[in-house]
Amino acid sequence: MRAKIYEDMLNAKSVIRETFTYGAQRAAQIGYENVFDYSLGNPSVPVPDKFTRKMIELLETKSPMELHGYSPTLGNQAAREAVAASLKKRFHLDYAADHIFMTSGAASSLAHAFRAVTVPGDTILTFAPYFPEYGPYVNLTGAHLKVVPADLVSFQIDFQRFEEMVTEDVTAVLINSPNNPSGVVYTEETLKTLAEILRRKGEQYCHDIYVISDEPYREIVFDGKTSPYMASIYEKTITCYSFSKSISLPGERIGYLAASPMDEDGKKIVDMCGQISRGIGHNCPSSIIQMAVIDLLEDTSDLSVYETNMNLLYDKLTDLGFSCVRPGGTFYMFPKALEEDANAFCMKAREYDLLLVPGDTFGCPGYFRISYCVETEKVKRSLPAFEKLAHAYQKSVGYEI
Amino acid sequence: MRAKIYEDMLNAKSVIRETFTYGAQRAAQIGYENVFDYSLGNPSVPVPDKFTRKMIELLETKSPMELHGYSPTLGNQAAREAVAASLKKRFHLDYAADHIFMTSGAASSLAHAFRAVTVPGDTILTFAPYFPEYGPYVNLTGAHLKVVPADLVSFQIDFQRFEEMVTEDVTAVLINSPNNPSGVVYTEETLKTLAEILRRKGEQYCHDIYVISDEPYREIVFDGKTSPYMASIYEKTITCYSFSKSISLPGERIGYLAASPMDEDGKKIVDMCGQISRGIGHNCPSSIIQMAVIDLLEDTSDLSVYETNMNLLYDKLTDLGFSCVRPGGTFYMFPKALEEDANAFCMKAREYDLLLVPGDTFGCPGYFRISYCVETEKVKRSLPAFEKLAHAYQKSVGYEI
Repeated sequence: MRAKIYEDMLNAKSVIRETFTYGAQRAAQIGYENVFDYSLGNPSVPVPDKFTRKMIELLETKSPMELHGYSPTLGNQAAREAVAASLKKRFHLDYAADHIFMTSGAASSLAHAFRAVTVPGDTILTFAPYFPEYGPYVNLTGAHLKVVPADLVSFQIDFQRFEEMVTEDVTAVLINSPNNPSGVVYTEETLKTLAEILRRKGEQYCHDIYVISDEPYREIVFDGKTSPYMASIYEKTITCYSFSKSISLPGERIGYLAASPMDEDGKKIVDMCGQISRGIGHNCPSSIIQMAVIDLLEDTSDLSVYETNMNLLYDKLTDLGFSCVRPGGTFYMFPKALEEDANAFCMKAREYDLLLVPGDTFGCPGYFRISYCVETEKVKRSLPAFEKLAHAYQKSVGYEI
Repeated sequence: MRAKIYEDMLNAKSVIRETFTYGAQRAAQIGYENVFDYSLGNPSVPVPDKFTRKMIELLETKSPMELHGYSPTLGNQAAREAVAASLKKRFHLDYAADHIFMTSGAASSLAHAFRAVTVPGDTILTFAPYFPEYGPYVNLTGAHLKVVPADLVSFQIDFQRFEEMVTEDVTAVLINSPNNPSGVVYTEETLKTLAEILRRKGEQYCHDIYVISDEPYREIVFDGKTSPYMASIYEKTITCYSFSKSISLPGERIGYLAASPMDEDGKKIVDMCGQISRGIGHNCPSSIIQMAVIDLLEDTSDLSVYETNMNLLYDKLTDLGFSCVRPGGTFYMFPKALEEDANAFCMKAREYDLLLVPGDTFGCPGYFRISYCVETEKVKRSLPAFEKLAHAYQKSVGYEI
């Protein structure tokens, strides 16, 4: 096979996939309800009924030619206008349809953003802990992903390490807040410091450094707070959004890229996305799905279950002596493992039918991810298993908890 | 802007787009019904009712979690199995689900196929006349598209020119039959000769030369015939399919890539597509659309209108003295212009409100494309305009018709 790069990737093992496969096998043995699978980040609450009703209405009333015809290159015009109006209202930036490019979900938003503002050989920086797919997403464009080590105290940003790593080859910084896997929301202060450094470094190197802000969890925030909006703080921001998590439509592949109205090149970036699409085989998301989400731009699924689950798990785990930064959003948390080797810890957890993902995958060894997008009833039933796991460490290695 | 390659593409003019824009302006002046717009290749017949009913049934009966959840990386398993079974039945090749990768339409099928079997620097050959998007589709992967000049007698393949051009750097050949823009269907003899040459050249160069067979028009064939199936003839064939034309779903972005069961690397190619997706932001087509098309794999829209239109236009144009190869399928035909400069000819045609696309765009100067996916009533009303256009050439330049 000529394309050895992809052939070689087939041999790489994904610990998340392996955990998922193990979970399915174990469920066949002891029953699905007895496996506490905290490995996958799939929404566990349904899309709002409104979406289903809207889809049926479209199918029953619109002409099939209009409903299923080609979208314009940059997306359905009404969808672009509606997204712009909603962002304008919520974030007080002067968005117009020309700033919006409709995409097949976050992966596609990111694929376009990387290609618009970096060229092969450039470096894109991101921060540990980070979504592991960022590696192939970036590296297969020809740019290089480099990872700033985690600020282990708060999972905000270690700015000293960051500044050292912003070398001249860095042309974009990829952030993800609320964060997978830590659940942490970057504070306004974090984002402002980030912006200040990027402005200064950009001036020093005589080139813009873009922030590519991956925001699929923007709406999943706890304690009645909101997530500070990077594009309001830094003009060279490209916002990548997906409806996968907020309205539980991961399989429908729908999202958008929003260039900033404060960026003089913003509209041009959107136009360039239309050209980038030609090279990567992206020809708009499904037309009917684009039309359907227009009515749900400010709706969410019932996301309260995630906050309930977080509180149950966070309280129990900290009670048990786990060290954990309290999540401000998402459906993840990222506690410290009870031994140095998080892989060994997660294997140990399997003895209690707890499926956890070691932090090594996220660029943060010694920690583990809990994806608590599961039924609350199951979370409650899993708490004794965490207790047994913690006690096993107390007994076997004299770990102080 | 860093990514100058995409910025520069913004300045390129598309004659098809320009013609479409002109048509819209002209329609505003004299009425839509009086503009004979033969410029665009959009299906003009609706999706079968069955699709609409199936979509509504899925929305009303399936759990939203199942309906809108993530597809597996290579596509919905039931869809892959159903596509394999249908291809097996129709083309007598031993397809299994493992040979099928569900894609967001033909553009995405091609984007994966190119990356699976070529590497940057390789050459991909195609044949004039050809779909102009092949240029950016291929060249933005880092491979180079080279075009074998047209066989102007039959729009089959000029094998002498082809053999000269199959140099050692050629690792794939891209074919499109039934063909946009000529409407011609490659004969079984053409495909067999192509296969024979590729086997011989592959042996000579010690590397496989793949055929990437772009078949969105496979089901739109005339005179009760079928289109010979390349994967039955040549083992190193990757079949790229889209439901855009056969069931008129261009906006829903649904298709598949089928690796050949006769290719020992076929299943590996499909697995590699899952890795390629990570680099180009493709994460499966819409899940509900994948589920819905399962029931329509052997259905088509009412395609008879295209054959009716073809006969009306072909008979009239040949009567008027146009030289034209009779289309065997699609909704295109590709006659010779009445002057050497097809651009000037198409500008002249606008005087009679006929919107035609010059062949230069398709790598074949001196010809023009008619896209007859329009209402038959309008085709009939357009015939006098073709007559006036032909007479204008008789009068003004003494052209013999």
